[in-house]
Amino acid sequence: MKYGIVGSKGKMGREIMEYFSSFGDECVVEKDVDHFVERDVPQLIIDFSSPQGLKESVELCRKYNCGLIVGTTGLTDESFRLLGELSKTLPVVQSYNFSSGMSIMKEILKAFREQFKDWDCAMIEIHHSQKKDAPSGTAKMLKEVIQRDLSISSIRVGGIFGEHTVIFSNAGEVVEISHRALSRRAFSIGVRRAALFLLTKEKGFFTYEDVLKGVDKAAEELRGISELL
Amino acid sequence: MKYGIVGSKGKMGREIMEYFSSFGDECVVEKDVDHFVERDVPQLIIDFSSPQGLKESVELCRKYNCGLIVGTTGLTDESFRLLGELSKTLPVVQSYNFSSGMSIMKEILKAFREQFKDWDCAMIEIHHSQKKDAPSGTAKMLKEVIQRDLSISSIRVGGIFGEHTVIFSNAGEVVEISHRALSRRAFSIGVRRAALFLLTKEKGFFTYEDVLKGVDKAAEELRGISELL
Amino acid sequence: MKYGIVGSKGKMGREIMEYFSSFGDECVVEKDVDHFVERDVPQLIIDFSSPQGLKESVELCRKYNCGLIVGTTGLTDESFRLLGELSKTLPVVQSYNFSSGMSIMKEILKAFREQFKDWDCAMIEIHHSQKKDAPSGTAKMLKEVIQRDLSISSIRVGGIFGEHTVIFSNAGEVVEISHRALSRRAFSIGVRRAALFLLTKEKGFFTYEDVLKGVDKAAEELRGISELL
Amino acid sequence: MKYGIVGSKGKMGREIMEYFSSFGDECVVEKDVDHFVERDVPQLIIDFSSPQGLKESVELCRKYNCGLIVGTTGLTDESFRLLGELSKTLPVVQSYNFSSGMSIMKEILKAFREQFKDWDCAMIEIHHSQKKDAPSGTAKMLKEVIQRDLSISSIRVGGIFGEHTVIFSNAGEVVEISHRALSRRAFSIGVRRAALFLLTKEKGFFTYEDVLKGVDKAAEELRGISELL
Repeated sequence: MKYGIVGSKGKMGREIMEYFSSFGDECVVEKDVDHFVERDVPQLIIDFSSPQGLKESVELCRKYNCGLIVGTTGLTDESFRLLGELSKTLPVVQSYNFSSGMSIMKEILKAFREQFKDWDCAMIEIHHSQKKDAPSGTAKMLKEVIQRDLSISSIRVGGIFGEHTVIFSNAGEVVEISHRALSRRAFSIGVRRAALFLLTKEKGFFTYEDVLKGVDKAAEELRGISELL
Repeated sequence: MKYGIVGSKGKMGREIMEYFSSFGDECVVEKDVDHFVERDVPQLIIDFSSPQGLKESVELCRKYNCGLIVGTTGLTDESFRLLGELSKTLPVVQSYNFSSGMSIMKEILKAFREQFKDWDCAMIEIHHSQKKDAPSGTAKMLKEVIQRDLSISSIRVGGIFGEHTVIFSNAGEVVEISHRALSRRAFSIGVRRAALFLLTKEKGFFTYEDVLKGVDKAAEELRGISELL
Repeated sequence: MKYGIVGSKGKMGREIMEYFSSFGDECVVEKDVDHFVERDVPQLIIDFSSPQGLKESVELCRKYNCGLIVGTTGLTDESFRLLGELSKTLPVVQSYNFSSGMSIMKEILKAFREQFKDWDCAMIEIHHSQKKDAPSGTAKMLKEVIQRDLSISSIRVGGIFGEHTVIFSNAGEVVEISHRALSRRAFSIGVRRAALFLLTKEKGFFTYEDVLKGVDKAAEELRGISELL
Repeated sequence: MKYGIVGSKGKMGREIMEYFSSFGDECVVEKDVDHFVERDVPQLIIDFSSPQGLKESVELCRKYNCGLIVGTTGLTDESFRLLGELSKTLPVVQSYNFSSGMSIMKEILKAFREQFKDWDCAMIEIHHSQKKDAPSGTAKMLKEVIQRDLSISSIRVGGIFGEHTVIFSNAGEVVEISHRALSRRAFSIGVRRAALFLLTKEKGFFTYEDVLKGVDKAAEELRGISELL
């Protein structure tokens, strides 16, 4: 696949290029502050830049008539208005977290929280010492999913990328469900799933949950459009 | 509740009596080899004895006109014939594993195995050094549920009661789901859930999965029959 | 070995009897509130009762001219005065924690805290939901050993007997050292080590650390006195 | 500090440059196949290339009259002869593993294996699915250190960088000691410690264990030579 990337010099930008290139995908448009390279017409644009950068991504999508994947955080109401507008004619996938594992963990907790209602519950989240906020946004999101008043222990040490563990225990048993991100690869894998999904859509606004639910169907359809890749 | 126990001198028999007594339940019939005590008419019989002992449990149920919970292992075809016969007129719950946590873990894996199909998968099970068989029966059961050809690492050390961990990992993430039995309490909790379930039934053959699905409904019905307890 | 136990009906008393009997040791004196059985002359007395019960243990030691092991908690100055007095003529081992593993963990942290001084450090301790105090006394003791201002995350869930994990992490690595008590067996093993140690001593006051350092030497000496056992 | 790197385009080469630059260190000589850049005279050469590349590293050290750090694997007798020769006039640090945490874990096991001799012991090592050998070289090394006939469970899944866990358990307790490498950063930290150590030496052949033992003393000495950095 041929893609463009906005935020090409950022950590996620470089990680995406490294991961996608291992599948033979070509980055044909690179954009960052004071940097623009255009080698070919992309089939989609990936944006990991800033709410400001996003405006230019939307323009690029119109220029190339292609879809958009947005992983940029801190989006404003204006950002979402722009994305909503774009999604009327082109496909858009937007998410703050492209980790498949965390999405699955969330779904497990949602599906089984009732069965654990007689059990005690606690959460531990561990991140590197540079992370300022505690508990993590993901921990708060998981707590909302569990729908209980549980204590979250936040630990900040060394270079741990990101771990979340939910512990259920009754008088005789313990069940633990945990997720660990090993590196940014956790997210670039999800971005590529979203890209494959996007190529099967004509227009519309999608979340990463839509991608996960639809990707199998998309995979089948892709066999039919494999000449595009 | 008033209950009788067959296998009253065994480890599970004693554990059940200790746990049930913490709720004010009364053990009114005790039976073991060369041991029989009858203090009152029980509302149900709990059997953790042997395939031989089971015959006497079935007779006791007929004598007292009450239901039966069977946790005895190594049952024969003859055992199941006896239980099937009994269940035509009285309620029977039979299971080789009364751990709620392990039942939930099994259900999680069943419900989410598809979502992990692109991930690598492995299992670790750790038990005390007296345990002879490896992998454990539970590990083999979990492997069947996952429906994949995965490697099981079996570790036998010290006094660890029983741990099973399923590890899913892709290039950037790890999701682990684990169960740990802390003591026989893991099972006596389940036996009491089964007992509460049994008191709401007139007849029929049930597994522990039926108990877990029906216990909420049973709990509601029990409010209506709470005078029985 | 023939021993007596004060606090014979308590949880630790019963656990000690069960564990010791697996080695063929005989409990020849049992004492508890309103309970006294004397079958033979003991070679040592084990006290897991109360500061009040301890007085009677000291009297029993004088009566039988034998040593004393004390695991009772909440000892007063008066208790220690009594023990000091007894230790002038008979051997005494006193400790609030007879877990060998926790003693070893403490020693590891003491020996290696310097090597981890450039690493971040945090501690997690998990106990059952009935435990009221947090952090646990053991966690506070470990923090003192590490000699750093580290955060302790205390979790209270279900029936977890007692876990302490020390996490060291720098930008690229994590080293974890953890201890888990599986049951009261963690302590009865240590009490028996203390008993074997005590039989080699004529008098003096000893801690469990003395036992761990001396037990190998004691084991050798015991071969010479094996007719005593 | 000003340093040169041989194998500058390899994964470890790039990681070392990224990590060292965060301290303001300057890479003034870069060498790789068909690649040579020389911007200044280095104070030391770091080699993560190949046994062939090592020859050129030795020549560079002679040219600049500076020390050498070698992390290249698969060294031959000829490699060690070259390094031995060089170490007569210049300082050399050679190691196959620059992870501080693994070195400390090794020392802990060496120092405490005697205290665990009555405990059961097992090891689990987990690595990414591309790793072909099992057990890992590090696991075998740890087994030698523990000096016991223990079972090693090797798991190969996803992108796990490298984990080693040693489990000790008796009837009542579990003690676990584990090491996890999060990324190549685990090794570049050690290489920089070795570099600081090397700058304090005039000549001689050193291992990474020598670095760990001497680095505190070196750090003090470095205050005196801080103008060099």
